[in-house]
Amino acid sequence: MPRIAYVNGRYVAHADAFVHIEDRGYQFADGVYEVCEVARGFIVDMPRHLGRLNRSLTELSIDWPVTRGVLPIIMREVVRRNHVTDGLVYLQVTRGVASRDFVFPAGTKPSLVVTARKADPAAAEKRAESGIKVITVLENRWDRVDIKSVGLLPNVLAKQKAKEAGAQEAWFVDADGTVKEGGSSNAWIITRDGVLVTRPAEHGILRGITRTTLFEVAAKLGLKIEERGFSVAEAKAAREVFISSATTIAMPIVAIDGAPVANGHPGSITLSLRHAFFDVAEKSPA
Amino acid sequence: MPRIAYVNGRYVAHADAFVHIEDRGYQFADGVYEVCEVARGFIVDMPRHLGRLNRSLTELSIDWPVTRGVLPIIMREVVRRNHVTDGLVYLQVTRGVASRDFVFPAGTKPSLVVTARKADPAAAEKRAESGIKVITVLENRWDRVDIKSVGLLPNVLAKQKAKEAGAQEAWFVDADGTVKEGGSSNAWIITRDGVLVTRPAEHGILRGITRTTLFEVAAKLGLKIEERGFSVAEAKAAREVFISSATTIAMPIVAIDGAPVANGHPGSITLSLRHAFFDVAEKSPA
Repeated sequence: MPRIAYVNGRYVAHADAFVHIEDRGYQFADGVYEVCEVARGFIVDMPRHLGRLNRSLTELSIDWPVTRGVLPIIMREVVRRNHVTDGLVYLQVTRGVASRDFVFPAGTKPSLVVTARKADPAAAEKRAESGIKVITVLENRWDRVDIKSVGLLPNVLAKQKAKEAGAQEAWFVDADGTVKEGGSSNAWIITRDGVLVTRPAEHGILRGITRTTLFEVAAKLGLKIEERGFSVAEAKAAREVFISSATTIAMPIVAIDGAPVANGHPGSITLSLRHAFFDVAEKSPA
Repeated sequence: MPRIAYVNGRYVAHADAFVHIEDRGYQFADGVYEVCEVARGFIVDMPRHLGRLNRSLTELSIDWPVTRGVLPIIMREVVRRNHVTDGLVYLQVTRGVASRDFVFPAGTKPSLVVTARKADPAAAEKRAESGIKVITVLENRWDRVDIKSVGLLPNVLAKQKAKEAGAQEAWFVDADGTVKEGGSSNAWIITRDGVLVTRPAEHGILRGITRTTLFEVAAKLGLKIEERGFSVAEAKAAREVFISSATTIAMPIVAIDGAPVANGHPGSITLSLRHAFFDVAEKSPA
């Protein structure tokens, strides 16, 4: 069964899914994206993801490529055509195709690409039972990481560095030692008192959709959350550490820069959050 | 006569020039580029541009997409097929096509796109005789702007802001008021004593090829250069101000944030540099 992608109005075989060389996404990283989890046949937190997409597009003065009501239909169709029950759906919007010039072109239609792929929930669960490792890197990205743009080269380099160090995520850390966020996730700790701590999302990080929903999961579990910055040192001394993203949900961190977190095993509160997530999240039938 | 582009081994009609949606240039800005001027039938400073390309590729651990000796042949062929005597040749190299994952894919062949287009040297000369305007914006880019990556969204936004203010370039300025560089150019001033000043290119800016060649042009004209930072205030009080890039050469700046530079007309030293440039630059027959 060949994979199918949606590209600018057409459903095409993945192998035949092309965009023009002068698509501004290719020449300028002039575009944004979203990734939604697909779980048990549902697209998870789709309205929130589309709300964030709207914010990214607005910040960059990019028009919606299709009406806002049509995008969920396309996403569902791509999920359906690829027979994805568990996995993810990816969408990318760019400013469109125009003769190369930095300034916004006039009257260009934005590009839209939507793909979906399967993932093995059992493998993800196994990863969560072992936990994953992070390294820290100095923050070196631009100031507008609150916009979910495809300008991800710093994230690529940080996550590659993590991989080379035997880790699975890299945390961007400010010069003062405060943790900002991961290359593709938000960062959390749980204090000795059982309080969840994560950095405010007003600026300097991307406001994670999974992060937002985890606030509701925590409330349901009777857990307290403090929105404040925390240092690498505080994280190393924390009761539990985890990251959140649409594809990892709450994923335990068991080592930071090679030093084990707590006893080096996933924390029970993190796993409770993880396992309560699906029930709390908004589920749109795919 | 249809425009022709080179895309991954083939010369194709520009309208049919496509890359895969999972090209990492499109999804991650995981690629680099160069722009060479084409003037009077020559590709200008091509070896220096290819040297900088090599540095960008090396910094990102991207392999050459073709052997280094073959790329000039492709560039010349694209220029020739598009009948460009004056204009530019653009090349872009990305890490290639792979299933979306931040870390470097194994065994992926880098992508190569080369395009060329005509420009009107008389129109450029007319622009130089009028001069252009710059605005200043706070530096908000990532730390590795010394790599000529396609992650150009901050540059797009800055240059769009310039356009909306009736200007043609935006200068990124540090919090302390020091000018870094333009959205697609290096920044220069000429002091009351006739000394050229431009920021060192060791870090924080891209080492412009035209900037480098202008050092030789200045030497030939008996002009002194100081490599040091300068402030916006110093630029506003300078005898002359100009920018340099492959497509603008030395281009006079006649206003900064709406305030005229000197008498508001292009400076004579800048125009001397501009007109001596072609003779000094390395010229490869196209």
